[in-house]
Amino acid sequence: MKILVLNSGSSSIKFKFFNMTNNECIASGLVEEIGTANSRAEIFVTKNDRKLELNDQSIQNHNEGIDVVNYLLKETEVLNSLDEIDGVGHRIVQGADYFDKAVLVDDDVIEKIRELCPLAPLHNPANLAGILSSLEHKPDLPNVAVFDTVFHQTMPEHVYMYALPYEFYTEYKVRRYGAHGTSHGYVANAGAKFLGIDNDKFNCITLHLGNGSSVTAVKDGKCYDTSMGLTPLEGLIMGTRCGSIDPAIIPYMERVAGFDAQQMDTIMNKKSGLLGISGTSDLRKVTQMMEDGDKLAKLAFDMLVYRIIKTIGEYYAVLGRVDAIIFTAGIGENAANLREAVCKKLEHMGISIDLELNNKREKDIRDISTKDAKIKTLIIPTNEELAIAIETQRLISK
Amino acid sequence: MKILVLNSGSSSIKFKFFNMTNNECIASGLVEEIGTANSRAEIFVTKNDRKLELNDQSIQNHNEGIDVVNYLLKETEVLNSLDEIDGVGHRIVQGADYFDKAVLVDDDVIEKIRELCPLAPLHNPANLAGILSSLEHKPDLPNVAVFDTVFHQTMPEHVYMYALPYEFYTEYKVRRYGAHGTSHGYVANAGAKFLGIDNDKFNCITLHLGNGSSVTAVKDGKCYDTSMGLTPLEGLIMGTRCGSIDPAIIPYMERVAGFDAQQMDTIMNKKSGLLGISGTSDLRKVTQMMEDGDKLAKLAFDMLVYRIIKTIGEYYAVLGRVDAIIFTAGIGENAANLREAVCKKLEHMGISIDLELNNKREKDIRDISTKDAKIKTLIIPTNEELAIAIETQRLISK
Repeated sequence: MKILVLNSGSSSIKFKFFNMTNNECIASGLVEEIGTANSRAEIFVTKNDRKLELNDQSIQNHNEGIDVVNYLLKETEVLNSLDEIDGVGHRIVQGADYFDKAVLVDDDVIEKIRELCPLAPLHNPANLAGILSSLEHKPDLPNVAVFDTVFHQTMPEHVYMYALPYEFYTEYKVRRYGAHGTSHGYVANAGAKFLGIDNDKFNCITLHLGNGSSVTAVKDGKCYDTSMGLTPLEGLIMGTRCGSIDPAIIPYMERVAGFDAQQMDTIMNKKSGLLGISGTSDLRKVTQMMEDGDKLAKLAFDMLVYRIIKTIGEYYAVLGRVDAIIFTAGIGENAANLREAVCKKLEHMGISIDLELNNKREKDIRDISTKDAKIKTLIIPTNEELAIAIETQRLISK
Repeated sequence: MKILVLNSGSSSIKFKFFNMTNNECIASGLVEEIGTANSRAEIFVTKNDRKLELNDQSIQNHNEGIDVVNYLLKETEVLNSLDEIDGVGHRIVQGADYFDKAVLVDDDVIEKIRELCPLAPLHNPANLAGILSSLEHKPDLPNVAVFDTVFHQTMPEHVYMYALPYEFYTEYKVRRYGAHGTSHGYVANAGAKFLGIDNDKFNCITLHLGNGSSVTAVKDGKCYDTSMGLTPLEGLIMGTRCGSIDPAIIPYMERVAGFDAQQMDTIMNKKSGLLGISGTSDLRKVTQMMEDGDKLAKLAFDMLVYRIIKTIGEYYAVLGRVDAIIFTAGIGENAANLREAVCKKLEHMGISIDLELNNKREKDIRDISTKDAKIKTLIIPTNEELAIAIETQRLISK
């Protein structure tokens, strides 16, 4: 069985094409700057390292974007015919409490994804455009919606509710939904397997640290709490996002500086985080600047590390027993200096890493703990697209 | 030496009068509904249990309020003459980073308290009115300003900064200041003495749980982190305050329900918290409703307990070694069910309480831990007014 996975953003489509007999990624690529005169696209074919790029295109919408994906797959001979695609899996950011599992797309699913657009105004409309375009190209092909929020649907009520007027929840759906659920679920499951622990008895703290970052407390293999909230702003400090702050800062800034709530929304999401403090959102640059003696870069790094430590502490208190902490995603998998700074402050909790193992660059899942560590520290490369492909295959095969 | 302590709110003045030879509270009372035709005032005299009330007064401003305080002190023969007052200590909510200790009031101090009014619009103007009225009554009497924020001025930069654009800090003073500092400092110090540990080696987590609630991480006797932020909204769930939430909820609620940032400020501060979920802000009522089977009361209680547990976890991770957790203030000192619910979830961290000791009502400082507890659990009645009186005496005696 061959599955195409689509991750549609507002002006981009990322895709991966899998052979499910061995979970192999046959090809991957993206279309970007959709809707402009400078659209571009590329594909990379695994088996022969072939790369094909299209520049200076005018790809006006997601429909045309899917045309380009199909063209690239055929042009590189990944496919002879589109009939060889058995199903399409779509990453959907917000499924709210409508969806506690991935689903085959039908009219009702489409309507619900559309209804949830106010909860994810940047993402759900784009995700939906991807689904509609895919259906238009080949109406009989099964499409599967895999939601970022599904893994977090097991949170108990006292964990996902905010202490706001109760009608904010009943009328406006205000509650914690979380994000990166597919990634958190994937690495938690992989961690349990790696350590030889039954998934439904596995307690861990998963740290998905990338452009967006979130931490999840996993209890008995299920999500118990997660740091992102109604939106992906809450929780950790990120590249351009402030994470949790005193919410009264928003009305305060309106009074003293005239920024209204919508302007603050943009500032908190796009001009804050590492960028707001140090001038760059890229942790590699922050690290370089810090090594060159830049005080604000050092401050940004210390703030990021401190917030991660506090969040691990929260979930340590909540879980009672923690088998492992798991680092994943761009920063989690690659920033050895960040992992070291976090873990060395947590030795009193039984976390202890081998600095040599921590500094070694590898592509595979690995344990970087010292032998006497009570809590294992793992690095697990995340693979949200493969997880989406596996879910898609499972639903199609039913 | 005799010290009068004033805690001036927008329409009230609370006062306590101390004999500093034995730190005894000679009399206490309040003036309330200032500015209305239904003002009232009362005084309670410790030595003879005498209570004097004035009802249906028209006390138009803080100046007239101080007149009434003086009248009550003389009428009950606590004082023969106002000359017997050696100094006045004022509780000031916001000193920001201008003040890292209590100070004798002079023109510069008055100007700075006034300048900080935008950071505490409900409190600093009232606190200032109390100072100005006191000075007008007796210009030669020493007045001392004791700031709620002083104890928290030892937080490191990476702890007090928010990951917002850096100029929010430099231009608009946006950072974590904390609150209840006098209380946190008082009980931390009392806890160290009680356990026979040098204050400057004492690590503890102080839980000031009342109408407003905050938690402080104390390292080597000094504040290292605290849960309230720029304002007293951040952190724990409180009687009517939501505490920390996804800050993006504010722009979201504007988009879906039309509430602007200032309306949300009022909702988050006055209509949220226990009140927002259960319909009452009073934890005793919440407890009663919960025992009667009310599901939303149970939810509110569980949410409150869960947030406290997470915050203790944060500071446990940060401090490395914790000698004690300390419960104080109205809820902290009295709500045995809350203490039990919090502590029983933290046994894996070495916190363990004796349920009989926990349920016993006493007025004094006490240790409710079991013998094998690694981290002591103490209940310490807070006494912010006495702490203010002691600071006032110290500065006057210099």
